[in-house]
Amino acid sequence: MKTLIANALVVPMTKEGYSLRADIGIDGKHIAFVGRADASFQPDRVIDASSFLAMPALVNAHTHLSMGLMRNYKDDMPTLQEWLAEIFPVEDLLDERDILFASRLGIMESIQSGVTTVADMYFNQHSTAKAILEGGIRASIGITLFGDLNQSKERVKKSEALLKGFRNQPDRRIQFDYAPHAIYTCPEETYRYAHALAKDHGVILHTHLSETRKEVEDSISTFGDTPLSYLSRLGCLGDIKTLLAHCVHLTDEELIILKDLDATIVHNPSSNTKLSSGLAPISKFLEHGVQVALGTDGASSNNNLNMFEEMHIASLIGRVYTPTNTKLTPYQVLSMATTNGAKALGLEARIGRLEAGMEADILLLDLKKSHLTPLNDPFSALVYAAQASDVDTLFCQGRMLMQKRKILTLREEDVLKDANSCWAEVLARKRGEQNG
Amino acid sequence: MKTLIANALVVPMTKEGYSLRADIGIDGKHIAFVGRADASFQPDRVIDASSFLAMPALVNAHTHLSMGLMRNYKDDMPTLQEWLAEIFPVEDLLDERDILFASRLGIMESIQSGVTTVADMYFNQHSTAKAILEGGIRASIGITLFGDLNQSKERVKKSEALLKGFRNQPDRRIQFDYAPHAIYTCPEETYRYAHALAKDHGVILHTHLSETRKEVEDSISTFGDTPLSYLSRLGCLGDIKTLLAHCVHLTDEELIILKDLDATIVHNPSSNTKLSSGLAPISKFLEHGVQVALGTDGASSNNNLNMFEEMHIASLIGRVYTPTNTKLTPYQVLSMATTNGAKALGLEARIGRLEAGMEADILLLDLKKSHLTPLNDPFSALVYAAQASDVDTLFCQGRMLMQKRKILTLREEDVLKDANSCWAEVLARKRGEQNG
Repeated sequence: MKTLIANALVVPMTKEGYSLRADIGIDGKHIAFVGRADASFQPDRVIDASSFLAMPALVNAHTHLSMGLMRNYKDDMPTLQEWLAEIFPVEDLLDERDILFASRLGIMESIQSGVTTVADMYFNQHSTAKAILEGGIRASIGITLFGDLNQSKERVKKSEALLKGFRNQPDRRIQFDYAPHAIYTCPEETYRYAHALAKDHGVILHTHLSETRKEVEDSISTFGDTPLSYLSRLGCLGDIKTLLAHCVHLTDEELIILKDLDATIVHNPSSNTKLSSGLAPISKFLEHGVQVALGTDGASSNNNLNMFEEMHIASLIGRVYTPTNTKLTPYQVLSMATTNGAKALGLEARIGRLEAGMEADILLLDLKKSHLTPLNDPFSALVYAAQASDVDTLFCQGRMLMQKRKILTLREEDVLKDANSCWAEVLARKRGEQNG
Repeated sequence: MKTLIANALVVPMTKEGYSLRADIGIDGKHIAFVGRADASFQPDRVIDASSFLAMPALVNAHTHLSMGLMRNYKDDMPTLQEWLAEIFPVEDLLDERDILFASRLGIMESIQSGVTTVADMYFNQHSTAKAILEGGIRASIGITLFGDLNQSKERVKKSEALLKGFRNQPDRRIQFDYAPHAIYTCPEETYRYAHALAKDHGVILHTHLSETRKEVEDSISTFGDTPLSYLSRLGCLGDIKTLLAHCVHLTDEELIILKDLDATIVHNPSSNTKLSSGLAPISKFLEHGVQVALGTDGASSNNNLNMFEEMHIASLIGRVYTPTNTKLTPYQVLSMATTNGAKALGLEARIGRLEAGMEADILLLDLKKSHLTPLNDPFSALVYAAQASDVDTLFCQGRMLMQKRKILTLREEDVLKDANSCWAEVLARKRGEQNG
């Protein structure tokens, strides 16, 4: 199957500030060329993209797809800790069917905001893996560790058994990583175990880190060290690639430690503001040469999975909260949501840029919108003015997942109905437990 | 004409946290009832709103509709002052035809994000007034004063002559106010003159105030006083209703002065963050009993006129930037965008709430969306998860302005084409000036 995307305004994310009017050829799963089509490329399908902007599909580098069920639920608790105290008991009630329905909902939202790759961390990962294959997107799925070593070993054993069928998919759209939840839910032994697993399998360690001041204060009083220093001292961040979600409250010493690690900080500005966790000083991180990607966190703390909104919030906060006087530019934020996200997941040779040879994860954005008229600067437009609802068409690995806003891989009506009904059942179970 | 909006989830904005499943009857320009339709109400038109949320249409309390032409243009200047130095020379090139086309573009954006009322401040107000009547929305149009007393008198005289035909419209959808631009562009005499005009006509004085630290510092060194204290000392804020846009950097003394004034602060979080002006401490303002409304500012500093996005940004920033430990709630932010905006413009008896007798400015939001599923809490959903593109239908004064996202009062294609072509002409004029 050959597709010609004709005459688009292309933002390839290969060079700062670079855009061009070009055709894009897709041959099977890969980008054949970005430039002008010649006669040797005989497309089966032509998309008139003269009113579209084409850019790499987005990477959501930290999320919990299934938490969409708890969207707008128990909002506005004073702190992360008080909110988690409401959320954890509900999560205990979710079964594999709930997670399947919730994952489909999250994947639907992801596709609708131009995302083809997510780094997910949750329970019942086999249900999420099933939904990822159905929806046609990519994922790095975290095998979550939670609690003491025995509990975590039990979780990993159970997960591995259920995930066996999902390993080594020919499309390579799913990879797995090890995801100890956080230093306040996992002791030292659990982190050492997760690190050993990640190192043995040559995969990523994905964890929450330094999300709140309380986490930092508790870490100092319990471990005599700030969170990142503590994990670094344990040796749990070295020799592997790590994905460190949040990092709102890093010290200067911790920024120096990061220089020697293959780590990516995942910025989650919506969640960090909404839960009053704080504002991560991203411009300072970038000045220190730290790699930063972007994530939505779960829809329960966001309250959606809209990566255009996330780029927007990151851009705005990154211009007013500037402890170093360096302000985030639109290109830096777009990089966080594309190339940096790809690199964070070890996928930089496959996705994140529009270039010949890369896999064809492409987002087409409809520019015929009042809020994109006149366009003037495509980079500014993408982070300050564009909406997720402007994403018209989405390709993942050359496959069209959405066209004219209609998702081609999932039945939208059913996904919404199933999510509503399974959440109603969860709430009924909760009431039953309270009464029982 | 009688319209029945049947079986909606209604957020009437009459009481904190109150929503109900109800019908809404519209009779001509007014809301006949919110509750259950009885046989005496014979509608000409019935809208099945069982999957819609109905709420008051939004009020954008500070904007410059026509600045959409400069969208994404000269972004990311280090400060407001440097940005204005780029923008002012372009504004000088805009003629009444440009402002007509640009106003239509701004009105199209406003309708698409559920806004039926704007407080506008710009030049060539007669062009904006014409577009407002065409588009079917409401406006408080500022007669802008800029420069010294003679310049300002000349501007007012010219404006008044051109606006004569727009005064006393039977629908009362347009009102005028006096709008001295800012203390750094208008001397004392201009403010005194604007105040006298506002007082004589019994209308609002609308101005930019305390937007940046530089403005405050310059005010102290030039006038020996902070901006609001200075204008208060001149007597330019008393005896009238005022609309004070921005107020990012107020002192505690200024908050005390505000108690005795009929003033509304208009919060513009997107513009204030993007231009690095600062974060207005809204929760502190509310604790001091100050009335706060919400605005987008111009699309050149935002970069759109999306009031849903503005509610979202206000909510997020209002939870992380909390100098008083009081965090903004979704209901407070919704109030800023509805009831408070109406009150700021002296329209609280006509719009801002859904109640029998009020004029029918109603927004219907489509809840069948992945990012609104499950709904759980409508207030949280509206500020944290909803998108402008979820607004399906919009009424102003009982007239349907948009249905199924299609605007019924403006030709969308033409509005976009005209905006693009007139902006291209402005840029050509600019190049001509530079070369000439």
